[in-house]
Parts: sequence; structure tokens; C-alpha cells
Amino acid sequence: MTDQPSYTGEYIVIKALENGVTIIGLTRGRDTKFHHTEKLDKGEIMVAQFTEHTSAIKLRGKAEVMTRHGSIRNDD
Amino acid sequence: MTDQPSYTGEYIVIKALENGVTIIGLTRGRDTKFHHTEKLDKGEIMVAQFTEHTSAIKLRGKAEVMTRHGSIRNDD
Amino acid sequence: MTDQPSYTGEYIVIKALENGVTIIGLTRGRDTKFHHTEKLDKGEIMVAQFTEHTSAIKLRGKAEVMTRHGSIRNDD
Amino acid sequence: MTDQPSYTGEYIVIKALENGVTIIGLTRGRDTKFHHTEKLDKGEIMVAQFTEHTSAIKLRGKAEVMTRHGSIRNDD
Amino acid sequence: MTDQPSYTGEYIVIKALENGVTIIGLTRGRDTKFHHTEKLDKGEIMVAQFTEHTSAIKLRGKAEVMTRHGSIRNDD
Amino acid sequence: MTDQPSYTGEYIVIKALENGVTIIGLTRGRDTKFHHTEKLDKGEIMVAQFTEHTSAIKLRGKAEVMTRHGSIRNDD
Amino acid sequence: MTDQPSYTGEYIVIKALENGVTIIGLTRGRDTKFHHTEKLDKGEIMVAQFTEHTSAIKLRGKAEVMTRHGSIRNDD
Amino acid sequence: MTDQPSYTGEYIVIKALENGVTIIGLTRGRDTKFHHTEKLDKGEIMVAQFTEHTSAIKLRGKAEVMTRHGSIRNDD
Amino acid sequence: MTDQPSYTGEYIVIKALENGVTIIGLTRGRDTKFHHTEKLDKGEIMVAQFTEHTSAIKLRGKAEVMTRHGSIRNDD
Amino acid sequence: MTDQPSYTGEYIVIKALENGVTIIGLTRGRDTKFHHTEKLDKGEIMVAQFTEHTSAIKLRGKAEVMTRHGSIRNDD
Amino acid sequence: MTDQPSYTGEYIVIKALENGVTIIGLTRGRDTKFHHTEKLDKGEIMVAQFTEHTSAIKLRGKAEVMTRHGSIRNDD
Amino acid sequence: MTDQPSYTGEYIVIKALENGVTIIGLTRGRDTKFHHTEKLDKGEIMVAQFTEHTSAIKLRGKAEVMTRHGSIRNDD
Repeated sequence: MTDQPSYTGEYIVIKALENGVTIIGLTRGRDTKFHHTEKLDKGEIMVAQFTEHTSAIKLRGKAEVMTRHGSIRNDD
Repeated sequence: MTDQPSYTGEYIVIKALENGVTIIGLTRGRDTKFHHTEKLDKGEIMVAQFTEHTSAIKLRGKAEVMTRHGSIRNDD
Repeated sequence: MTDQPSYTGEYIVIKALENGVTIIGLTRGRDTKFHHTEKLDKGEIMVAQFTEHTSAIKLRGKAEVMTRHGSIRNDD
Repeated sequence: MTDQPSYTGEYIVIKALENGVTIIGLTRGRDTKFHHTEKLDKGEIMVAQFTEHTSAIKLRGKAEVMTRHGSIRNDD
Repeated sequence: MTDQPSYTGEYIVIKALENGVTIIGLTRGRDTKFHHTEKLDKGEIMVAQFTEHTSAIKLRGKAEVMTRHGSIRNDD
Repeated sequence: MTDQPSYTGEYIVIKALENGVTIIGLTRGRDTKFHHTEKLDKGEIMVAQFTEHTSAIKLRGKAEVMTRHGSIRNDD
Repeated sequence: MTDQPSYTGEYIVIKALENGVTIIGLTRGRDTKFHHTEKLDKGEIMVAQFTEHTSAIKLRGKAEVMTRHGSIRNDD
Repeated sequence: MTDQPSYTGEYIVIKALENGVTIIGLTRGRDTKFHHTEKLDKGEIMVAQFTEHTSAIKLRGKAEVMTRHGSIRNDD
Repeated sequence: MTDQPSYTGEYIVIKALENGVTIIGLTRGRDTKFHHTEKLDKGEIMVAQFTEHTSAIKLRGKAEVMTRHGSIRNDD
Repeated sequence: MTDQPSYTGEYIVIKALENGVTIIGLTRGRDTKFHHTEKLDKGEIMVAQFTEHTSAIKLRGKAEVMTRHGSIRNDD
Repeated sequence: MTDQPSYTGEYIVIKALENGVTIIGLTRGRDTKFHHTEKLDKGEIMVAQFTEHTSAIKLRGKAEVMTRHGSIRNDD
Repeated sequence: MTDQPSYTGEYIVIKALENGVTIIGLTRGRDTKFHHTEKLDKGEIMVAQFTEHTSAIKLRGKAEVMTRHGSIRNDD
């Protein structure tokens, strides 16, 4: 375990605006692959951190995303 | 125990807007699995930290969520 | 004892708006269980930190909660 | 003694609005018990830190409490 | 002596609004006892830090108190 | 693992405004090469950190980008 | 000498509003005693730090005091 | 690897306002030479960090640049 | 020499509003004595740090003093 | 390599307002000499850090400079 | 050399409003003596840091001084 | 090399408002001597850091200076 542990990592908030929204975690490191996929139905909310294993998050389907740089929607 | 202990981790606040709201903790680490499920009835409030074991929180059912990036509801 | 001791952890403020408000501390760590329950009568106030042993707090009954993300009530 | 000593811990301010206000310190650690009770008469003010031994403070009786999340009264 | 020495601790400011205001320092540690009492006459001002030995301050008599959470008076 | 781990790195948010938006990660280090390409369809959102392996991100196709220096679009 | 030396301690500013204002330094540590007394005549100003030896300052006589929590006068 | 790793370095955002915008990385160190050149076509966006190898970035062609000191355009 | 050297200490600014303004440095440590006296004539300005040897500064004569808590004059 | 590496150094932004703007890096250290000269044509932008080797930057020719202390132009 | 080197010390800015303005550096340490005197003519500007050797700066003659506590002039 | 390297030192910005503006670097340390002189012609801009060798900068000739305490001109 390190001086600044993983539970202090940045997080984003995702709210599904339709069924079947897909949240894909991409692996950190030399290779960037899908390592986890989470499905959200309409109205479900996910709060997800970057982790030792996840350095990018890809989002498919209509959703609202809240981040440190502001909020964004893709249902327009 | 580490220099920045776990009780200083980020937390979010969830207020159930109906019975049966489900809060699911997803495991940190190489595998992302459900490791804990908490049920809230209407009006119940939960304040939950990210921990050494939880790097994502999934929410089913109508709720209001307060985070560092603002508040969001899914009962619209 | 660590470099950043436990008494600097985050805290929340809870004010009971009716008798019998229940504050439940959930255990940190691999298992998330109830480890402490505190009952508040109407008007009683509790100020509680996250600790080495508590990573989530669940609240039953009408109350006002003050947190770093703002205040929330469930008596509406 | 540690790098960040105890006298830098968070504190709250309590002003009794009636006689017999009770401030109860709850123990930090695996067990959460009452470890100290302080009685305030009307108008008395107490400024109290979280400490190595106190991770929660419970308040009975009409009072005004000032915290980092704002002020709250229970005499309404 | 530690990395963050005692003279950087938090302090509060107390102004007596009547003769005989009593400022009581309560001991830090497992036992919470009175360890010092200071008497202020009307208009006297005291600026007091939390210390290695004091984790709570109790105030009797009409006074104005200035803290990091704001100011409060009990002469109303 | 280091004192300030990788999951605390800066991130940007990209929303595709058309199909076929390409996000290209360029390698950190003496040589600056393409090491990963991600395709986004219209409305897809990607949240990506700088990592030990990525020191620059190149974007082709109409998109909105949110960064610490503000937001920018290229569909004008 | 320590990592955060004494000359970075907090200071307050006192302006005497009459002759004979008394500034009393109280000792830090298990015993809280007077260890220094400074007399100010009308208009004299003193800027004083908390130190390894002083954890409280008591003020007698009409004065204006400037602190991190604001300014206060006792000549009302 | 160091205590403050490279992925936390400052970054700038560049949006090409015409075809053929050239971004040139200049080497850090005793000699300041071109070490990398990236071409952007109109509308392409690049987000680039200063790195262990790059201490200056030179830009040719019409572009908008977003930095911590504000935004600047050269198409006027 | 220490991690946080003396030249980063707090400083105050004093402007003499009459001839013969006296600035007295009081010693840090167990004994609080005068260790230096500086005379300012009207209009002279002194910028002085707290140091390893000075923990309090006393000012006689009409002057304007600028501090981190604001400015104060004694020529009223 | 050090705890706070070079890529976190301060940077300035320079936009040439005419052809032949010259940016001159002056050496850090006991001797202050020219060690690098960069020529910018009209509209070219340079973003340059202070480095281990550069402690001053001299600019000849009409340009706009953005710094942490604000922006300045010399074409007036 | 120390962890926080001397070139990060506080500085003040002095602009002479007449010929013959004198800036006097006073020694840090047990003895407070003049160790350097700098003469400024009208309009000359000096930017000076506190250093390992200078803990106070005395100014004679009409000048404008800019500090972290604001600006002050003595030509009134 | 130290934990906080020299390229993070404070810098000021100087714009010459006439030919022959002289920027003089004064040595840090026990002796304060001129160690470098830089001449600026009208419109030339210099951005200069305090360094291990420079603790004061003296400016002759009409110029505009931008610092952390604000901007100042001497051409009035």
C-alpha cells in the first residue's frame, strides 16, 4: 500500500438517460484494453474512480456525466 | 496502516426517494465485482466512502446523490 | 499511530427531526456489516467522524444531515 | 507523538440554550461507548475537539452548534 | 519536539462581557478533567490555543467567542 | 508503486460530435509515437487520464473537449 | 530545531486604547502559569506570536485585538 | 520513478484553425533542439504535457492555444 | 539549517508617522526580553520578519502597521 | 531525478506580433549568458518553461507575453 | 542546500520617489546590524528578497513599497 | 539538486519603456554585490527568476514591472 492510497483517486458520476448505457473501463499500462464493462439501465447512477487498473472510461448510450471539469450530456 | 489513512477518503451522500433503492459496492482491483449490496427504503440516507475495497458505487432506484461534482437526481 | 491521525477524519452532522432516528455505522474492510447503532430522539444532534472502523453511515428516520457536499433533509 | 499532533484536530462549538444540555463523547475504536459526559447550563459554551479517544459527539438538550459544515439549532 | 509544533495549533478568542467569566481547560486523553481555570473580568480578552494538554474549553459567564466557525455570544 | 500514484493524474473529457472520432495516445519518453487509438461514435464520451505511458492526446473528428483550462469544440 | 520552526507560528496584533494595558503570556504545558507580562501605554502596538512557551495570551485594559478570526475591541 | 510522476505535469490544449499546423517539441537540458514534430489538420485538437524530454513547445500555423495563463489565438 | 528556513517567516510593515518611532524586538524563548531597538524617523518604513530570535515586536510612537490580519494606525 | 521534477516548472506563453521575434534563454548559475536563441515569425507561438538551465528569458521584437502575473504587449 | 531553497523567499518591491532613497538590510540572527545599504535614485525600482542574511529592511526617503500586505507610500 | 529545484523560483516581468534600461542582479549571501547587468532597449521584455545567486534585482530606466504584488511603472 502507498502513501496516497487508491481510495483518494478522482471519480466521475454517470447517470443513464436510457436503458443499456455501457461503461467500459480501459486498462492502465502499456496496453490499453477493455477490462470491465458495466451496463446501466435508465436512471441508474454510477460513481466510479480511476484506479490502479483503470486509466480511461468509455461511455456508450445516452447519459449525463459529472466531472471535475463540469457536466456533459449526450442526449442532444 | 498508511500515511493517509482510509477514513479520509472521498464520500458521497445518497437519499432514497422510494423504497428498495439498491446501493452496490464494486470491488477495486483487477476484477470488478459486486462485493456489497445495501437496501434503502424511502427517506433513508446513506453516507459512503470509497475504501480500499470499493472503487465504484452503482445505484438502482429513485434517489438523490450528493457528490463533490454536484448533486443529481434520477426521479425526473 | 499514523502520520495523519484519526481525529482529522471527515465528519457529518445529524439532527433528529423525530424520535427514534437510527444512525448505523457500517464496518470498513472486506465485509460491510453493522457495527454500531445509535438512537437519537427528536432534536438530538450527533457529530460523527468516519473512523478506522466506520466507512459508511446509514440513517433511518426523519433527520437533517450536514455534509461537505451540502445539507439534506428527508422529512419532505 | 505524531507528525500531525492532536491539537490540530477539528473542533465544534456548542452553546447551551437551556439548562442541562448534555454533551456526550463516544469512544473511537472497535467499540463505540460513552466515555465522557459534560453538562452545560443555559448560555454556557463549549469548544471541543475530536481526539484520539473521541470520534463522535452526541448532544441532548436545546443548543446551537457551529461546525465546518455550518450552524444548526434544535430549539425550533 | 514534532514536525508540526504546538504553537501552530488552533486558537479561539474570548472577550468577557461581565465580571467573573470562567474559562476551563479540559484535559486531552482517556480522562477528561478540568486542568486549568482562568477568570476574566469584564472587557478582558483571552486568546487560547488547543494544546497537547487541552482538547476542550468550557466557558461560563457572558462572553463573546470568536472561532474558525464564526462568532457567538451568550448575552442574549 | 510511487508516493503519488497514477490514478491521481490529470484527465480530460471528450464527447464525439460525429461518428469516427479518433483519440490517439502518444507515448511519453524520448520517442513520441502513437501507442493507442480509440474510435468514438457520435455521442460517445471518453474520460482519459495522462498516464505513465501517455503524455499527449491527439483528436481527429468533431468533438467537444473539457479540460482544466476550459472547454473547446471543433465543429464550428 | 524542527521542520516547521517557531517563527512561522500564528501571531496577533494588539493596540492599547489606554495607558497600562497588560498583556500576559501563559505557559504552555501541564501547568498554565503567567510567564511574562508586558505593559502597553495608549497607542502602543504589540505584535506577538504563540511560541513554544506561550499557548495563551490574556489581555487587561482597553485595547483593539486583530486575529485570524477577526478584530475585537473592549472599549465599548 | 519519482515522488511526483510525470503524468501530473502541466499540459496545454491546441486546436488547429487551418491545415498543416505544426507543433514542435524542444528538448529540455543543456541543448535546446527539436525532438518531435506533430502536424495537425484543421479542427484537430492536441493536448500535450511538458515532459522529462520537452521543456518548450513551438507552434506554427493558425491555432487556438489554451494554457493556465489564458487562451490565445494567432488568426487575427 | 532546517527544512523551512528562516527567510520564509511572516513579516510586518511599519511606517513611522512621526519622528522617534521605536520598534523593539522581544526575545523568543523562556525569557522575553528586549534584544533589539530600532528608531524610525517620520516617513521611514521598516519591513521586519519574525525570526529565530524575535517572537514579538513592540511599537512606540505614531505609526501605521500592515499585517496579515489587516492594517492599523495609532495616530487617531 | 528529484522529488519535484523539471516538467512542473513555471512556463510563459509568447506570441510573435511580427517576423523575427527573438527569444533568448539566459543561463542559470554563477554566470548569466545566452545559451539558446529561438526565432519566431509573425503569429508563431512559443510556450517555454524555466528549466535547470534557464533562469531568465529575454525577448526582442513585437510580441504578446502571458505570465502568471498577467499579460503584456510591446507593440504600443 | 535545504529542501526549500532561498530563492523561494518572500520579496518586496520598492520604487524610489526621489533621489537618494536608502534601502538598508539588517542582519538576521542574535545581533541585528546593518549589513548592506543600497541607494536608489528617483524612479529606480528594487525587488528584494528576505535571505539567510537579511531579516529586516529599513527604508529612508520617499518611496512606494509593494508587499504581500498591500502597498504603502511615504510621500504624503 | 534539491527537493524544490531552482526552476520553481519566483519570477518578475520587466518591459523597457525606453532604450538603455538596466537590470542588475545582486548577489545572495553575506556580500551583496552586482553580479550581472542586462541592458534592454525600448520594448524589450525580460522575465527573470530569483536564483541561487540572485536575491535582489535593481532596475534603472523607464520600465514596467509585473510582480506577485502587482504592477508598477516609473515613467510617471
